[in-house]
Amino acid sequence: MLSKSQIKLIKSLSQKKFRNKHKLFVVEGLKGVKEFLDSDFKLVSLYFTEEQFEVADRFLNKIDQKDLKKISFLKTPQNALAVFEIPRNEENQSKGLTLVLDGIRDPGNLGTIIRLCDWFGIENLICSPDTVDCFNPKVVQASMGSLTRVSISYNDLLPFLKKNSHMPVFGTMLDGENIYSAKLPEEAFLVMGNEANGISQEIQNLISKKITIPQFGNIRETESLNVATATSIILSEFRRNSAIEK
Amino acid sequence: MLSKSQIKLIKSLSQKKFRNKHKLFVVEGLKGVKEFLDSDFKLVSLYFTEEQFEVADRFLNKIDQKDLKKISFLKTPQNALAVFEIPRNEENQSKGLTLVLDGIRDPGNLGTIIRLCDWFGIENLICSPDTVDCFNPKVVQASMGSLTRVSISYNDLLPFLKKNSHMPVFGTMLDGENIYSAKLPEEAFLVMGNEANGISQEIQNLISKKITIPQFGNIRETESLNVATATSIILSEFRRNSAIEK
Repeated sequence: MLSKSQIKLIKSLSQKKFRNKHKLFVVEGLKGVKEFLDSDFKLVSLYFTEEQFEVADRFLNKIDQKDLKKISFLKTPQNALAVFEIPRNEENQSKGLTLVLDGIRDPGNLGTIIRLCDWFGIENLICSPDTVDCFNPKVVQASMGSLTRVSISYNDLLPFLKKNSHMPVFGTMLDGENIYSAKLPEEAFLVMGNEANGISQEIQNLISKKITIPQFGNIRETESLNVATATSIILSEFRRNSAIEK
Repeated sequence: MLSKSQIKLIKSLSQKKFRNKHKLFVVEGLKGVKEFLDSDFKLVSLYFTEEQFEVADRFLNKIDQKDLKKISFLKTPQNALAVFEIPRNEENQSKGLTLVLDGIRDPGNLGTIIRLCDWFGIENLICSPDTVDCFNPKVVQASMGSLTRVSISYNDLLPFLKKNSHMPVFGTMLDGENIYSAKLPEEAFLVMGNEANGISQEIQNLISKKITIPQFGNIRETESLNVATATSIILSEFRRNSAIEK
């Protein structure tokens, strides 16, 4: 049985201001919940309809499907919903290839990009403050557990990049060098910009190496790749040399 | 002013069976509508709130925002909605690099893949009959006009691939060759499989060259890339040689 205050608290976590106030976020689905249980994230409470979990009883709340519907953010609730603590926002180490997001607004895009970081072994993801919150339920859902393996921090990009000026800053721009022939180092920042407006002017000024994905069809300047697919192509290019040596 | 029968007809086009019955589909948004007007697709009717279009008066229906809401499939209707004819499903020429989709179910994925074909100059896209319909409103929306430039046909893949056995069939499989070192020809079929189950067994038997995208993070066999991002990485690899020669 769920109390009104439990329902109210969990529902409130769909909003960033309440996530920040309570320092809590929601994970849904059996697979996702299990991945977070196996990670360093701290469990606060776990609501489930059938499955057994190996966690202390004090966290567990067996509820029925009707109650699950009351707290779920999904159209089709999926057997389990867990509330975890949001960890402290610690400034990431910047080493190796580090992805920097400048104003990504779509939760599905951020979720896909987090999965890509996981796949390509990018350990650190730096987000501008106006990038969508990585604990947004849609981002958590779209990232499918990769959120447990990629370290994400929100920073003002300008001071952050200036402070870390020992590493080159790559950015995708229309007038950049062809990524297929550009020399791509193992240590670098790669900046990806907002879905509609690209990289912001102040960050463009810090880019030391402009790159571009050449277009193969008939040239239409208005067309562009979705930011998540562009990110996948560029990360693949950065990694392919080491993949061939394997 | 909209008639009840107009509203009923347009709303019915959200469903594949009515699109097939009427041989009609819907495009929304100013940019999308204009791209379809500039293409070979045949306009049936155009509903708009403000914008001017250079098409014959008989197609034009000026309506107010309230009426637009009644026929739109979008949460936020976008000034223009047009009904176009679905062209005949003609079997595509298979030449160059041809993408083959085996059971892609998510409209967003298909829309993204159509945009990728457009970007990478893939002229022909072959879909299995159980792939989501490319005239589904969500696919039309996600493909952003690329649908006007990519030739899409629905075919039973088994007889189709058997008939076109002069071209090698590439498919992504877990035990495939590293795509970064595999030799990728300019003429080939590239098969991408269903989001959950991959390439179907009967089509796997026709694959002449298995390829795989190597994973860089810690190996977790359950993880996989989204089919649209995997497609973007593989198409990029197929195209990169010709891009360097440019």
